[in-house]
Amino acid sequence: MVLLEFSMSPLGKSESVGKYVARSLDIVDKSGVDYRLNPMGTVLEGDWDEVMAVVKKCYERMKKDCNRISCSVKIDFRKGHSGRLSGKVKSVERRLKRRVRT
Amino acid sequence: MVLLEFSMSPLGKSESVGKYVARSLDIVDKSGVDYRLNPMGTVLEGDWDEVMAVVKKCYERMKKDCNRISCSVKIDFRKGHSGRLSGKVKSVERRLKRRVRT
Amino acid sequence: MVLLEFSMSPLGKSESVGKYVARSLDIVDKSGVDYRLNPMGTVLEGDWDEVMAVVKKCYERMKKDCNRISCSVKIDFRKGHSGRLSGKVKSVERRLKRRVRT
Amino acid sequence: MVLLEFSMSPLGKSESVGKYVARSLDIVDKSGVDYRLNPMGTVLEGDWDEVMAVVKKCYERMKKDCNRISCSVKIDFRKGHSGRLSGKVKSVERRLKRRVRT
Repeated sequence: MVLLEFSMSPLGKSESVGKYVARSLDIVDKSGVDYRLNPMGTVLEGDWDEVMAVVKKCYERMKKDCNRISCSVKIDFRKGHSGRLSGKVKSVERRLKRRVRT
Repeated sequence: MVLLEFSMSPLGKSESVGKYVARSLDIVDKSGVDYRLNPMGTVLEGDWDEVMAVVKKCYERMKKDCNRISCSVKIDFRKGHSGRLSGKVKSVERRLKRRVRT
Repeated sequence: MVLLEFSMSPLGKSESVGKYVARSLDIVDKSGVDYRLNPMGTVLEGDWDEVMAVVKKCYERMKKDCNRISCSVKIDFRKGHSGRLSGKVKSVERRLKRRVRT
Repeated sequence: MVLLEFSMSPLGKSESVGKYVARSLDIVDKSGVDYRLNPMGTVLEGDWDEVMAVVKKCYERMKKDCNRISCSVKIDFRKGHSGRLSGKVKSVERRLKRRVRT
């Protein structure tokens, strides 16, 4: 399983890109792939093909009305580990023996 | 104000880097800068110098016992906007007219 | 056409990861997809599926003997533009009216 | 010494951002810090403070006429290693026993 965080924005549209982010999130939310939205991106968990298919779907949608798209992706593969959407944060809290802001 | 997301890991240590992540988070948490931890990074909000100082402090600490460090940083500056650690997610939810997973 | 830059490293191996980088580059070089290697990553040019297939192939190879993999990807899609592996640098030089270091 | 790759673009301007990239490169080129430009970013080599000062200078310039800025930074610190702007690529070529595209 991999964790994949991505953010995707059009260039050359308004400096407000919330409309496009919401459209992508709608695709993510309906994909069935587990995810968490944060202020700088969306983190997906699943197999490589599964999470990449979601990113591609967002890209295909954005391409329809955006001539330039910038996209950042960060992947963390760890063999035999799953449930890391919540597990990684909890592990930090366990080590620090206190809650952190999430 | 900028939003800055970063993640920082040592190379050449164990494949488990939780100890180092927790140490960085401890620095972030005590810095007084507002932040949110997510499964793939930590998002800070503040002025450029303020958030960069936190990242540098984590780097200086990690350098003490790590010979190789990999660090990703993503910055989103938006003039005249603050409170975006919670505002950006809420804006997506407002557009979609429903809650998303966070 | 998209430009896609990626870098991929194992965690929990030696702090020297040159062996793994070379192995990925060998895959890239034999893929037939045009690319440029730089000190921090490899930039590919092609269609989404084409460049993503190369990244996946590198990932599949690395998975065989690495339990944890960290991968960064940055994508720049621009409708109707190709030849940007050399074009983008030249465009900067044209604007500055001088050569820059590449 | 660290290698730091960064790319910085305004949102809400034209889909062509070459003018802004050239302006940043001019700052980089005159900074005295060693660098290489590639199609997806600029790689700097130096101490943390030195390379971060260059990125900040580019940011301060861009802020003057851009209301929203997106910036990606990737850092690779390796104790006791320098000359890596050319060294990392050469190391890959040495391992593969052939030239690659740069």
